[in-house]
Formats: sequence, structure tokens, C-alpha cells
Amino acid sequence: MAKELKELTSRSTNYAQWYNDLVIKADLAENSAVRGCMVIKPYGYAIWEKMRDELDRMFKETGHVNAYFPLFIPKSFLSREADHVEGFAKECAVVTHYRLKNDAEGKGVIVDPEARLEEELIVRPTSETIIWNTYKNWIQSYRDLPILCNQWANVVRWEMRTRLFLRTAEFLWQEGHTAHATEAEAVEETEKMLNVYADFVERFMAVPVVKGIKTAGERFAGAVETYCIEAMMQDGKALQAGTSHFLGQNFAKAFDVTFINKANTPEHVWATSWGVSTRLIGALIMAHSDDNGLVLPPNLAPFQVVIVPIYKNEEQSAQIAAKAGELISKLKALGISVKFDNNDTKKPGWKFAEYELKGVPVRLAIGTRDLENGTIEVARRDTLTKETVSLDNIENHIKQLLEDIQANIFKKAFDFRASVTRKVDSYEDFKVEIEKGGFILAHWDGAPETEELIKAETKATIRCIPLTGEKEEGKCMITGKPSKQRVVFARAY
Amino acid sequence: MAKELKELTSRSTNYAQWYNDLVIKADLAENSAVRGCMVIKPYGYAIWEKMRDELDRMFKETGHVNAYFPLFIPKSFLSREADHVEGFAKECAVVTHYRLKNDAEGKGVIVDPEARLEEELIVRPTSETIIWNTYKNWIQSYRDLPILCNQWANVVRWEMRTRLFLRTAEFLWQEGHTAHATEAEAVEETEKMLNVYADFVERFMAVPVVKGIKTAGERFAGAVETYCIEAMMQDGKALQAGTSHFLGQNFAKAFDVTFINKANTPEHVWATSWGVSTRLIGALIMAHSDDNGLVLPPNLAPFQVVIVPIYKNEEQSAQIAAKAGELISKLKALGISVKFDNNDTKKPGWKFAEYELKGVPVRLAIGTRDLENGTIEVARRDTLTKETVSLDNIENHIKQLLEDIQANIFKKAFDFRASVTRKVDSYEDFKVEIEKGGFILAHWDGAPETEELIKAETKATIRCIPLTGEKEEGKCMITGKPSKQRVVFARAY
Repeated sequence: MAKELKELTSRSTNYAQWYNDLVIKADLAENSAVRGCMVIKPYGYAIWEKMRDELDRMFKETGHVNAYFPLFIPKSFLSREADHVEGFAKECAVVTHYRLKNDAEGKGVIVDPEARLEEELIVRPTSETIIWNTYKNWIQSYRDLPILCNQWANVVRWEMRTRLFLRTAEFLWQEGHTAHATEAEAVEETEKMLNVYADFVERFMAVPVVKGIKTAGERFAGAVETYCIEAMMQDGKALQAGTSHFLGQNFAKAFDVTFINKANTPEHVWATSWGVSTRLIGALIMAHSDDNGLVLPPNLAPFQVVIVPIYKNEEQSAQIAAKAGELISKLKALGISVKFDNNDTKKPGWKFAEYELKGVPVRLAIGTRDLENGTIEVARRDTLTKETVSLDNIENHIKQLLEDIQANIFKKAFDFRASVTRKVDSYEDFKVEIEKGGFILAHWDGAPETEELIKAETKATIRCIPLTGEKEEGKCMITGKPSKQRVVFARAY
Repeated sequence: MAKELKELTSRSTNYAQWYNDLVIKADLAENSAVRGCMVIKPYGYAIWEKMRDELDRMFKETGHVNAYFPLFIPKSFLSREADHVEGFAKECAVVTHYRLKNDAEGKGVIVDPEARLEEELIVRPTSETIIWNTYKNWIQSYRDLPILCNQWANVVRWEMRTRLFLRTAEFLWQEGHTAHATEAEAVEETEKMLNVYADFVERFMAVPVVKGIKTAGERFAGAVETYCIEAMMQDGKALQAGTSHFLGQNFAKAFDVTFINKANTPEHVWATSWGVSTRLIGALIMAHSDDNGLVLPPNLAPFQVVIVPIYKNEEQSAQIAAKAGELISKLKALGISVKFDNNDTKKPGWKFAEYELKGVPVRLAIGTRDLENGTIEVARRDTLTKETVSLDNIENHIKQLLEDIQANIFKKAFDFRASVTRKVDSYEDFKVEIEKGGFILAHWDGAPETEELIKAETKATIRCIPLTGEKEEGKCMITGKPSKQRVVFARAY
């Protein structure tokens, strides 16, 4: 079926609708028959595979190994850590029975009331509890530490309002859970993984991030400190792209996990956890794409180059296919992924629009005149420009072009973020400025009540207390109390 | 903590206990706090990653793409296909609520009775129903076909008796779900994927398989025909290693999935599904391992070579480490994965036992005398033999050795299977022979009642009607009715 390619809502008309249209029309994902759960379609999943493979490589390079822990968590486990249950009990899927049966009264298949579980099981919203219950048996001595495990898994949080990729009841993610002998080592791990995330998001997703620390009110349920990376979307809203938590000894105490330290004294183990999810795909879309469709950074595009042949008959088709074949070999030898679309049932114009919509970084078109002239048409998705270039050494030209596109996409996002980031010193100004979106750097007195007041009145939250950049002292814009540095405010996804 | 390496039960003493001991002691997996759900530990998960990566490559080479479908299935979906619900309703995890709350009477955290789902959700035991409900919207015309999707996922079947890897309530697997315009194409796909599985299990797992078709009684719930590969374990029991199902139009009819064919007529879509799971790790263990521990085929070992340095002081340690470093570079250049274990807190003898237990295919030991002589000690896990060889060109020697080990492990399993496979012509003999284990090739009249009788009396099932090998006609050993070929009987996991 031909899709109506032109029906993408523009960003200025309705940004939320543009996002949803784009996810659907670019074949990334769709809503399923199960409320709040999405189907990740092959093209969207291919982006996730690219993300996963890169992150997995980075985790392994930093000494981590993968493992797999159960989907289900006994209800009582969730309650062991007081803040944790407070944070997750309100939105979880609860398994109460383990069998269906045919209804004796002919009502079809029903839950068998006799197959009720003694203790209900929660579908994991995150795995700290089941993992620390497991680590208890793995850890006796300091020699058993550190444990540096990661898992790739699905999790469920019963969100009431869902949006494809950004907030879904079930999502895919990775969650690292590490155990350490000292506080310093655990803090170092927390920061190391924050840096891995920032590096990934900036170098692969081409999205600049602010690294910082969450306020107590925005902290992960059960953490001592939550580190985060915050990204800016094109509509001026912030998006939390990843978090790394220093959990202190909270979970070790809740699950009674101790070790004998070098001084031969029992001590509770120190913990971290850190995760990123399929939400990153939402960030990727919203950071770069335009009214014509997706704009994918070459480092994460399922295929970086598409070749569209233009011909009038079989003979021309065969000639072009031969030339394209040579080119494909050369590109692949340079590690460039390429698709040759010689599908007969679609016209070149349709294909151009389709690959624009799907954000393929470079589109090559080759016709008979190109064959005669030894040229090819090269179109880049990020700038929507095209040029006719010689086929001589084209593969190196394209390799360089892909690097340029990656850098250009990052620069565009970086410049945009700079253009919507500003300092504000009075609450009067703040209330005006927050309506325009972007990051606002303002002074805050550190009090949860002040933070709550601002949130209630403006819908802005403190995205983070930044770790880098200038540390300028000042006075809270609400209370006038002293502040050691500006914090980052924004409305957020 | 030092493990008690020598406590592995021998196979002859108690095969089931040997298996369980080995899974635990080799750090592959353990039981979790959730009944029937296992924790896959890093070493076990590394084997699964190797399996997954190879299979994924093979699926992609045969034109498949990955996608992701919801964990939950509405209860009513399961009922749409009559056989399917019959097969899966008895053992499923049912989500009935979506929130917990603090009990007003102080009983702690309880299920919030007000958060009851209108329709219960089943944690997927397999995904045909949710996927065909999705495909309905993807398919209108023959141009939309075929759809060749696979998903890597967790599934849950509430088994009453579980065993690590072999039968667990939650397990990891892949499930391919394809949609086709013609019956012939769907059958071809079913057979193609059976061949992919057989190829993988034989070439990577080094386990020979019998390819065949299941009897109606052993068919997947909802399939028209179930193809399978059957492997033989060292205790003489069979293990189903993978299945590929031709689903006919059953799910297309249940979910009303039609397409307009080339003749412009609506028609129901043809389907297949196929899967292998973490159960394969159980098969891998049971096919090759011995009383000293795991025996891993080089093609799936998390690391193929381990180097253990033997030294008395720092100076020797540094010299050996330098030589080992050179060797590691050479091995890695040949694509060989290698671990250098210079952990100071363990003695060489402990390491030898540990890597024997963990099934590392090749162990290299290098001491100061080796440095002087330009030699190294090479031990192979499959034969438990060792030799001292020259360091000159050692990397190519090891590359060849790994290939030899892979071939030898396969041959050993192949010869063992041959030794326990025999023809039996009378039911008298059958009852004697089945006690000895192995595959029994016998004639069967094709009647479900005959199959049931044999199963009830001997606990043997028809593993498959083989697709290859001689097709010798004969008479059913029970009824004397004609039989077109011998079928494969065994007791099975």
C-alpha cells in the first residue's frame, strides 16, 4: 500500500502530533491491543539494536558482564526498601493467578480461582530488589567484590498516560547493578557510567547533554544520589536521557547483604544502579527530525546509505545494477551499511520521499546519464541538499560525508540548545521565560518547598544541579537565600 | 570463597544430580526466590549471548528482521484459536491488577482491589495471538507479504516441575513469526528454519540431531504440522532442541487476517512460527560434559583459551606476563578469544580445576622453564590430555586444535548416539530396550491410540517421524497394521 507520505503534521502546527505521526509513518512503532504497550516495528527495532550493541560494547570495555534475573518480584521484596516501594507500588502489574480454565457455566476461559498464588508477584518495574536478594548469596568476602552486572530486559510500569517510546507501560532497557566494598568505589562507578551514557548520547545519538545531579525530590526511589544526563528537544522541553544511581547501603541493608572487609569486619555492601531505555529512541527522534521526517545520525542509522536506480527498461536496469554492485562492495569494505532499492513496483520519487521520511543519512540516485558521465547524485538528509559528483573515489567521499553529517547534526542540536539556554535572576522573569521553553539557569536555595512551589506554579522542574560549567554563587530567585550555583530548570517529558 | 570443586556428583551415580551440580558449580545459573524462575549467571549468559548472536546472524542472512511485541496478551486473544488455548491456558501467569497500596489495617503493602483490570492479561507463553492481531493491520495485499519477523524475548509457562535451563517458568527464547501468500511458501519457510536450527545445533553446539515431524499428539497447540530437531543426551534420554511450525491458516482465521491475492481475491494468510530457547544450554551441557565438569565446544565457549602463568616471584611473573601478552595478541588476531588469569590469590592447581569445571576448550600453562625452552603446556578439555609444544607458530597450532576439538566433540556425540540407536521390531523387545535408553526405531500404525498406549506403558514418546534416512516399510509392533517408515521412540526431557 502506498502511504500518504505528505500527511506528516508540521512541528509548528502541533509538535506532539508531529512526533506521533512520525513514529507511525516512519514505521518505528505503533500502539498495541494492550493498553500502553507498544509494538516496536522492524525499522524502530533496528535502531534499538544499534544502540544496544554500542552500549553493550561500552559496558564490556568498562569491565561489566551481562546476566539475567527473573521477570517477577515477590510482593514482599518491593516493601523491604521504604522509599522504593513508595516509588513503584502505584504503577505495577500484579500477577495473582497461574492458571486459566473453561468456565463451567459456559462463559469461556476464566481465571481459575483455585490457582491463586500464595504471594502475589510483581512484574519488575526495575530489579534492585530481586537482584540484591540474589547478591546476598554471591557475596561473603571483599574478594567477591566488585560485582559488575548488567541486564538487558523488559520492564513494566503501569503509566496512565503513555506515548510511543517516551512513556510506555512496557519498555526495553538495560539496568546495571553493581556491588562494591567501599563508598568511594561505588561513587566512582556511578560517575563512570554517567560518563559512558553521556559519551554514547553525544557521540552516537549526536545529542548534547547536561550532566548533573537530581534534587532529592527527583531522586530514584531508594537512591542516595541520582546522577542524570538531560537533553533538550526541539520544542524546548527537556528529556532525561539516562540515570546513574548511587544507592549507598540502602539495598544491602534491606536485603541484609554484608561482606567481611580486609580488616575482617562485617560491613554492608555499597551499591549502584544505572539504566537507559527505548525512551532514547524518542529523544533521538525529537532532537533531530524535521517536517519531512526522521533525521538519523549515521552512527545509529539501520542503513547509512540507500541507492535508488533510475531506469526506463530492463537493459538500463541491469547496467545500473552492475555499477551499483561495484559501489556497494566498496562502501561495505569501508564499513558503511547500504541498501540497494531496485523494487520495481515503486517509482523513484516515491522512494525519495520514503527514505527522506525514514531519515536515511545519504541517498544516492544513479541513472543512465550518470553512467555515461561517470557520476552519481548524492543527497544528504540533514541539509536536504544534493550534488552530482564523480564516481571516482566516491566511497571515500561518502565516508567523509557521513562523518560530516554526524558532526553537523550534533552541532545543530548543540547550537539549538545554546540558543534556548539562558540565565534568569528574578522569578518574574522566570515565569515569562519558562513559557518560551528551553533550559533556564537560575539560583535556588536548595529547599524542597521552593522547588515544589516553582513546579506547582510554572510546571518547571529542576532537571539537574549541573556537574560541569561555571559555579557562580548567587541568591535564590524565590527566597533570596544563598545559592552556591545555578541549577537547570525546564519543563520536561 | 574457594568452591569445593571436587563435589561434582558423577554421571553414573546420579545423572540428574550431576546435571544440577554442574549448572550450579560452573556458575551457569541458579534458582531464584521466585518459584521456577532462574537467575542466569554471567558465565551462563555469555554462552546464551554466543548462541543468540550466531542464530541472529543466520536469521538475518535468511531475510528475517527483528521486532518486539508486547509481553502481555489479553485473555480473550488466547481463546480465539481453540487448540492454542487448550495448550496454554493451564500454565500461564495472569495479571489481574495494576496497583498496590498500603493496607489501611496495617498489613503492609497489598493489592489495591480498586485497581482490577477489566480484562485479565496473560504473560506471553508464546506470541502467535498478539502478533497475528498486529499483522492484521500490516497486511492488505500480496504486496505486503511475506512478513519475516523474529523476536528475542522472555516467555512464561507455569510449569509445576522445573529444572535449570531444561524447564523453567520463565525462559529466554526467540520466536519467528512469518506470514505468507501461499501454502507452499509457508511450508518452505517452516522447513528452511528447521534446517537453520539443525545447522546451528550441529555446527555450533556440536550436537547431532534427527530432523523430523511430530505426531498429531505432540504437535504445537494451533499448528497444522510441527517440525522438530531431536538430540540424544548422555543418559539415553532425548531432548527436543527446536521446533518449526507450519500453522496453516489457523491464526489468520482466528484473527481475521486476509489479503488480496494476485487474482484480486481475498484469502487468508499462511503462517509459520519457530523457536529455540535457553533450553539449548541444558542440551549443550548434557550432550558433552563429563564428571570433571563442562565440556564446551570452541564455537560457543565464552572464551576458548585460558592462559595460566606459573611463577614464584614478581620478576618471573612480569617475564611470563610479557610473553603471554605477545601470545594473546597473536591469538586475538586469529579471532580466538582468550583469558589471561594472573589472579594472585589463587594457585595454578585451583585454576586448572576451575577452568576444567568451566569447560574452557584449551588451557595453556606457562612457567619459567617454558620461557627458557621456548615452550608452553597445552591442555585440551575434551580429551583431558596435555602436551608441551614449541612457542613457534603456537597460534596456528591452537587455531587448528580448536577446530579439532570442535570436530571431536561432535564425533563423540555422534558415535554415542549411533551406539544407542537401534531398530526394534516387537513390542516385547521394545519394552526391554526402552529401559536401556537411546533412540528406538520402530514401526507404528499412525494411530494416536497406539501412541498413547506405548506412552502409558513405557513412558516412551514418538520423538519424530524422521524426514531423512531410509524409508523402510513394515508392520506396527503393537497392532501389526502397515507402517510406511520407522519412527523414533525415546524417553525424553
